Amino acid sequence: MSGILHPGEKRLVLISGRAHPQLAAEIADELGTELLDTESRTFANGEIYARFGESVRGADAFVIQSHTEPINEWIMEQLIMVDALKRASAKRITVVAPCYPYARQDKKGRGREPISARLVADLFKTAGADRIMSVDLHASQIQGFFDGPVDHLFAMPVLMKYFKDKLGDDPNLTVVSPDMGRVRVADRWSDELGAPLAIIHKRRDPKVANEVTVHDIVGHVEGRTCLMVDDLIDTGGTILKAAQALKENGAKSVIVAATHAVFSGPATERLSHECIDEVVVTDTLPLPDDKRFPTLTVLPIAPLIARAIHEVFEDGSVTSMFDGAA
Amino acid sequence: MSGILHPGEKRLVLISGRAHPQLAAEIADELGTELLDTESRTFANGEIYARFGESVRGADAFVIQSHTEPINEWIMEQLIMVDALKRASAKRITVVAPCYPYARQDKKGRGREPISARLVADLFKTAGADRIMSVDLHASQIQGFFDGPVDHLFAMPVLMKYFKDKLGDDPNLTVVSPDMGRVRVADRWSDELGAPLAIIHKRRDPKVANEVTVHDIVGHVEGRTCLMVDDLIDTGGTILKAAQALKENGAKSVIVAATHAVFSGPATERLSHECIDEVVVTDTLPLPDDKRFPTLTVLPIAPLIARAIHEVFEDGSVTSMFDGAA
Amino acid sequence: MSGILHPGEKRLVLISGRAHPQLAAEIADELGTELLDTESRTFANGEIYARFGESVRGADAFVIQSHTEPINEWIMEQLIMVDALKRASAKRITVVAPCYPYARQDKKGRGREPISARLVADLFKTAGADRIMSVDLHASQIQGFFDGPVDHLFAMPVLMKYFKDKLGDDPNLTVVSPDMGRVRVADRWSDELGAPLAIIHKRRDPKVANEVTVHDIVGHVEGRTCLMVDDLIDTGGTILKAAQALKENGAKSVIVAATHAVFSGPATERLSHECIDEVVVTDTLPLPDDKRFPTLTVLPIAPLIARAIHEVFEDGSVTSMFDGAA
Amino acid sequence: MSGILHPGEKRLVLISGRAHPQLAAEIADELGTELLDTESRTFANGEIYARFGESVRGADAFVIQSHTEPINEWIMEQLIMVDALKRASAKRITVVAPCYPYARQDKKGRGREPISARLVADLFKTAGADRIMSVDLHASQIQGFFDGPVDHLFAMPVLMKYFKDKLGDDPNLTVVSPDMGRVRVADRWSDELGAPLAIIHKRRDPKVANEVTVHDIVGHVEGRTCLMVDDLIDTGGTILKAAQALKENGAKSVIVAATHAVFSGPATERLSHECIDEVVVTDTLPLPDDKRFPTLTVLPIAPLIARAIHEVFEDGSVTSMFDGAA
Amino acid sequence: MSGILHPGEKRLVLISGRAHPQLAAEIADELGTELLDTESRTFANGEIYARFGESVRGADAFVIQSHTEPINEWIMEQLIMVDALKRASAKRITVVAPCYPYARQDKKGRGREPISARLVADLFKTAGADRIMSVDLHASQIQGFFDGPVDHLFAMPVLMKYFKDKLGDDPNLTVVSPDMGRVRVADRWSDELGAPLAIIHKRRDPKVANEVTVHDIVGHVEGRTCLMVDDLIDTGGTILKAAQALKENGAKSVIVAATHAVFSGPATERLSHECIDEVVVTDTLPLPDDKRFPTLTVLPIAPLIARAIHEVFEDGSVTSMFDGAA
Amino acid sequence: MSGILHPGEKRLVLISGRAHPQLAAEIADELGTELLDTESRTFANGEIYARFGESVRGADAFVIQSHTEPINEWIMEQLIMVDALKRASAKRITVVAPCYPYARQDKKGRGREPISARLVADLFKTAGADRIMSVDLHASQIQGFFDGPVDHLFAMPVLMKYFKDKLGDDPNLTVVSPDMGRVRVADRWSDELGAPLAIIHKRRDPKVANEVTVHDIVGHVEGRTCLMVDDLIDTGGTILKAAQALKENGAKSVIVAATHAVFSGPATERLSHECIDEVVVTDTLPLPDDKRFPTLTVLPIAPLIARAIHEVFEDGSVTSMFDGAA
Repeated sequence: MSGILHPGEKRLVLISGRAHPQLAAEIADELGTELLDTESRTFANGEIYARFGESVRGADAFVIQSHTEPINEWIMEQLIMVDALKRASAKRITVVAPCYPYARQDKKGRGREPISARLVADLFKTAGADRIMSVDLHASQIQGFFDGPVDHLFAMPVLMKYFKDKLGDDPNLTVVSPDMGRVRVADRWSDELGAPLAIIHKRRDPKVANEVTVHDIVGHVEGRTCLMVDDLIDTGGTILKAAQALKENGAKSVIVAATHAVFSGPATERLSHECIDEVVVTDTLPLPDDKRFPTLTVLPIAPLIARAIHEVFEDGSVTSMFDGAA
Repeated sequence: MSGILHPGEKRLVLISGRAHPQLAAEIADELGTELLDTESRTFANGEIYARFGESVRGADAFVIQSHTEPINEWIMEQLIMVDALKRASAKRITVVAPCYPYARQDKKGRGREPISARLVADLFKTAGADRIMSVDLHASQIQGFFDGPVDHLFAMPVLMKYFKDKLGDDPNLTVVSPDMGRVRVADRWSDELGAPLAIIHKRRDPKVANEVTVHDIVGHVEGRTCLMVDDLIDTGGTILKAAQALKENGAKSVIVAATHAVFSGPATERLSHECIDEVVVTDTLPLPDDKRFPTLTVLPIAPLIARAIHEVFEDGSVTSMFDGAA
Repeated sequence: MSGILHPGEKRLVLISGRAHPQLAAEIADELGTELLDTESRTFANGEIYARFGESVRGADAFVIQSHTEPINEWIMEQLIMVDALKRASAKRITVVAPCYPYARQDKKGRGREPISARLVADLFKTAGADRIMSVDLHASQIQGFFDGPVDHLFAMPVLMKYFKDKLGDDPNLTVVSPDMGRVRVADRWSDELGAPLAIIHKRRDPKVANEVTVHDIVGHVEGRTCLMVDDLIDTGGTILKAAQALKENGAKSVIVAATHAVFSGPATERLSHECIDEVVVTDTLPLPDDKRFPTLTVLPIAPLIARAIHEVFEDGSVTSMFDGAA
Repeated sequence: MSGILHPGEKRLVLISGRAHPQLAAEIADELGTELLDTESRTFANGEIYARFGESVRGADAFVIQSHTEPINEWIMEQLIMVDALKRASAKRITVVAPCYPYARQDKKGRGREPISARLVADLFKTAGADRIMSVDLHASQIQGFFDGPVDHLFAMPVLMKYFKDKLGDDPNLTVVSPDMGRVRVADRWSDELGAPLAIIHKRRDPKVANEVTVHDIVGHVEGRTCLMVDDLIDTGGTILKAAQALKENGAKSVIVAATHAVFSGPATERLSHECIDEVVVTDTLPLPDDKRFPTLTVLPIAPLIARAIHEVFEDGSVTSMFDGAA
Repeated sequence: MSGILHPGEKRLVLISGRAHPQLAAEIADELGTELLDTESRTFANGEIYARFGESVRGADAFVIQSHTEPINEWIMEQLIMVDALKRASAKRITVVAPCYPYARQDKKGRGREPISARLVADLFKTAGADRIMSVDLHASQIQGFFDGPVDHLFAMPVLMKYFKDKLGDDPNLTVVSPDMGRVRVADRWSDELGAPLAIIHKRRDPKVANEVTVHDIVGHVEGRTCLMVDDLIDTGGTILKAAQALKENGAKSVIVAATHAVFSGPATERLSHECIDEVVVTDTLPLPDDKRFPTLTVLPIAPLIARAIHEVFEDGSVTSMFDGAA
Repeated sequence: MSGILHPGEKRLVLISGRAHPQLAAEIADELGTELLDTESRTFANGEIYARFGESVRGADAFVIQSHTEPINEWIMEQLIMVDALKRASAKRITVVAPCYPYARQDKKGRGREPISARLVADLFKTAGADRIMSVDLHASQIQGFFDGPVDHLFAMPVLMKYFKDKLGDDPNLTVVSPDMGRVRVADRWSDELGAPLAIIHKRRDPKVANEVTVHDIVGHVEGRTCLMVDDLIDTGGTILKAAQALKENGAKSVIVAATHAVFSGPATERLSHECIDEVVVTDTLPLPDDKRFPTLTVLPIAPLIARAIHEVFEDGSVTSMFDGAA
């Protein structure tokens, strides 16, 4: 047989955008490696430039970016990095987006709206992404927006471990869904903790963003330790109004758990309100000091992502990380 | 300017698969036209063949198929018809799928599962479909599975008109969601009818299909007229158990409303159980006589679909059909 | 060089649809491995569900399905399995379709017909198939319908070995083509066996499926052992009429050889007619007991397919399996 | 409704490559229009350049090219013209290739061969072609190589009219297939003329092009007027040897009919051999004077193509041009 | 012929992003219409939302956005608007990007860089754009980055008219290229004005952005009126150093002409330096008051773009707008 | 874990078209291997056929073709070879085009022109190419025409080494750009050699190919050794006129350096004119004896290409071959 033979070898490289370098560094640490030397800059006119300091030919590249504000900058930076990887002959490119951008624009609520979550999936594909890895997608259907493998990780084991350690087998616990749209998540927590469920029945005006009207509570909360769960907290408006309603209805304490701490606008002020006893989140998004407050607990997500990257690289199983919960 | 000039003209053609010819005929009737002469057959070995009896060159073609059992046959028939239209130079092809097939496989519930609802969207695209029209998608995100326009119609006006005529302003009405997954739909009905909400809190074992375990009721149903709403009824198991729980908890009457009457297996027997006072559905799927029972009311969906096709063909507005409700 | 290095490794996995599990099991046996644990079910409403019990990340996956009746079910099942493999990060996916579905719809015989054989190739591509493997395509051009590698295997060595063992150097042998469309196949057999050729000149009404009108015989068959060859036998109508014509024209015996035993409708009755002395086929399609009859011989195709899969996996040569005959 | 309204209008433009300007001019004539002013040149280094002298914005463009030698030049010229049309905003682009290039490379005869007929279809698609129009494809399956509408025209009415006028109801006529691969065509002629069939049984060495070995004749030709039919005549080798065999077996006369007169290499010499009484072809390919000979009759194909273009432009029916024969 | 017939009609709609509403309004004015009612917002977390207030079904939509800072925001807004148009069934979507974003990243200057100008073209295509319209692309090759029609407009007639009015036939005029990369533009101006050419020979360190080192002047500038031309002015560094070099070499006056006034960072300060006598630009990008200075002249680009849109909509000719200069 | 495991291995194969077999042989030599056994032929009618004599399954294939005249033949041959490789299951296919075909048609100079350089990139992609390797692209932007990695090599080190050896530190050297379009190249040479720059200011009539009008010289050339550099020499017209102008302006000697020796039409005669003292090129294109002349020096390009192929195959770095110069 003519030609030249050579044993195959795989190489994992980790690349980080500029949105949340600490998370990427922690993931690299967990994996016992370093981030690829990357030069990324914003020119005077706002255009972004990226270049890798080392060859990525044939590499299995993971591009980590946290889609915090300014979110469109970080999307473009990640697209540009993926483009550069593709043109530099990386073998496989995985977009790591711990908090998937535009996840809440996952359908046309009204006519003539975009479906930006699908658009984002297509943009990544077009730039050259072969795969996506994300944590707690706002809607599981977003997996179906990407034409290729999506590794959907769950922060629940991370959060659950914290609460089991903290609350033990508190018989007084009730899981609360802050609105109708998140009852599935609350349902899963109620199941896992063996605790009853309550739901805040409110209405969101489709024409006004971030404005909600709290209605009454479906279920019993009087004298209960209320654990309110959500996938993400944005401005904190829904959460605060829900917490107030819980306290007004006699809840003993209100603890809030969420995966993604978007914390935009007045979020910090609202979440540090006295009617909320504790807020527990992960660091899928960066949390600068001015967004933190005394009753906030931040759990590290890097170990989970690092393990998933390891399984993907080694052709192991991501599914088994969640014991069938995925 | 050289060349030959000719005034432009648009031509609408309606084509029907063999799954539910009556619905297609009614749509044609509403539009004041006839179905295109189509020959469709199944060969001895099970392969399907389709051919149009008339030119479709340049036409704006709508291919109507109801995805009832045997559902895979009807998907393939529709794909084959779309392929034939594409190769026969139809200008634009719209797949009309009143009850979107495989809609419940819209995400990976566990690892190594397919996302068949996305697959189906891709298959239609590949065959040559430019657009999709459907009624009450199981999850609105399915709109984002198709790379092109999806006209998402709502049966709610049809059903709502029936109930408003029938129930008037019954102050005794409560809207019930049969499980956690459908609370958004119930929420919208409760809003529209100005009636309170109750939710059946049950758990569905992810490893066993069509098997549910009813838990308790969140909200008040005693002495109430319970209107239980869902997008589709398949084997009727969830609905029956929910109805039983409602009656056991003192509900005065139980009425069930759903858009898609899949009615597979023991559905007819279950739905005609004495604890369900009435079942109201539309005919997006064919309902042969042996699936019908005395307490069943079937509302025609053809007028809604016909009007939407008319708006699409004339470059009107489908959104405005639902007064911003879409 | 930064990053993590790991030696490359390839992993072959075999997956079987539910159409012909015995064939898949025999292929696995020949390869000295086992089929991947797969859960495949049909829900009450006819929708198919599939899930793999083990990780397929990075695997070279071969999905074996026999496209027998109900053929559309098995196509959809295979598409769904391919989708699940793609989303589960299989590295390469080969569709093994021993008897390619819709192979006879390989062109537009008349205007406004589909080209379903091309459509099927596109559907497999869309679902995620990288390659196709098939045996004795009805038309070799179908290779060109798929945008990627097609391994086209030939059952001729399997059948030829049987006949050489059985007939030895029978100087009385004549190869017969049952109609005009199959003369190329008969030509190749005549060449290989060094035997003269005869052709049945019949006409097939293009508007009526499975109906033929036998005309006269071109060539000499009186007193000859007639070996009639075809790629597939569907309802057996053409074959029976051809055999009758041969016997009426003095043929001493009539043996029929074909690769694919579709055997739909009245096939078994027709093929066991006394004017046909023997029918020899392979088991690319399942042959339940009620389709078998005393004069039928079934040759196993699994060794051929297994060897081809081995060559594909090991980057060997499939071409050389057929001594340049491919 | 905001915006600017304007009545729609269609404009047909005809464009010709440099391979066979006369055919394009005749088609324009038949349609009562003129060819679009086009500048097409070959630079000193062999690169081709094309530019249109007039706007083609929004036009329904038909690009006519005859794929004669140097065939690769004319393919590239047509691709470049299609690219220029696409970038100049033509609305729809139809490649008119009366004699489809590389049609005989329609399958892998052996391993590691290309399928150039599929490649050519893909190249046209990539350049921007929406549709293809061709006459008498070497294999009908080539229609399935293009992902879009293919208008497959048949020269048979043109040729048949000539022969019916010339031969009347000659009871002495036999239709002859020059080899095994063309029996389907001969079968159709035999059907149409109500004449018996004969077949030349020869073998073509797969490793040597244009070399054949004539075997014996299947069927009766002694004293008959033999009408030998084929889709194309390339070097004329097969035809000449077949004609000689026919004459040696007592044929009274030998007439050859074919759609495409490739006439390469020694074709003219061979076809003017005394054992061939007449050769009848169409002018899908240019026939310069030095390729013509006294016994050659050339029938014009422009009326057929012009009518098909007219039907395509006007959204009429091409199928009906052939009375169900297509 | 069955079906419903309807006369065709075209409808032009203009849509504007939020980057430069004045330009869009002027274009609408020139065309005698209004911008489509559009709701576009940025949520608290930075995500953008867009929705159209009126049906765009079947419309020929032009989406105007000026890619000024924050440039990535405006790219994403335009992508989201295109996605919404596609899903709302617009017939054709043209991205109007007067100053093409990322145009200077049009090649890999070094290994492992992106080609962001190509990426941007692909992103627009993916979102659903059918066509692009832009003014004075930094490199003409960017036209080839988009797979479809690109209408490339030239501001030269606008600028030239101003200078011809102002300078008349000044025999003292010299056209100057500020660096090696722009000599083609200067060459065209020199040609058009019949004036000699001079070039500033400087070197740009590829590793440091916006930093240049002026070398000497090739050509004669002493006592001359120097018209320095460029396609865009970003931070103004190159221009200022070139102007200083010209003045040091005895230039009588220095006038700067450019199409795109990016004016980032210290541009205003630099350009208002006393060694530059006048700066003339167009308003393809917004110029807020704090970026303007006494020696700046801004010419309106709306008439040019409006005329081009008119030609595109009416299937006229954009090429003829530039008399063969395009 | 079920399935069969096998260690991974990579195999490099080199394939050569028929345009420039010597170059391919030299590359194979440099790499210490042999060209894959390939059968490539042109049939009598001009169609090309290619087949590989050995399995290429899983191989990393490099297809080398030199795009000399007849350039369209060689493009088609390479496309056909790529198609055959794709269908024969090669793992990765790299098109090696040392002198990229149609590189000068890289933009629309006027309306209704093609962008053939982009078209060629798309054709290669469509045929199955994963990557492109080329030397000194006429415009660097052509890298962006291909949707995938392009390895852009530079002949400058090869040429520079020759000149540094020959000219040493000649203080009398001036680098000359033969026209406005090539000043960037000359700029880089001037930089590298530390020599001043001069530019020939001519005008090329856009409507007439290969015709130029030389104007005056910008910069000083009297008594200087003029090194005129370009990426390619086609008919030599520009070069000869530039050389004449240099000599007329007192240049001591004129040396011409270029990467690609197209040498069409009267090139040889022009370049051997007495006013040109030496011409130095590489052999990216074949130079038959009748195109050579006494003052021509041809430097071998094979070592450069071989090294780049080696780096690509071994996942090394091509960028580092040029010390950041790429």
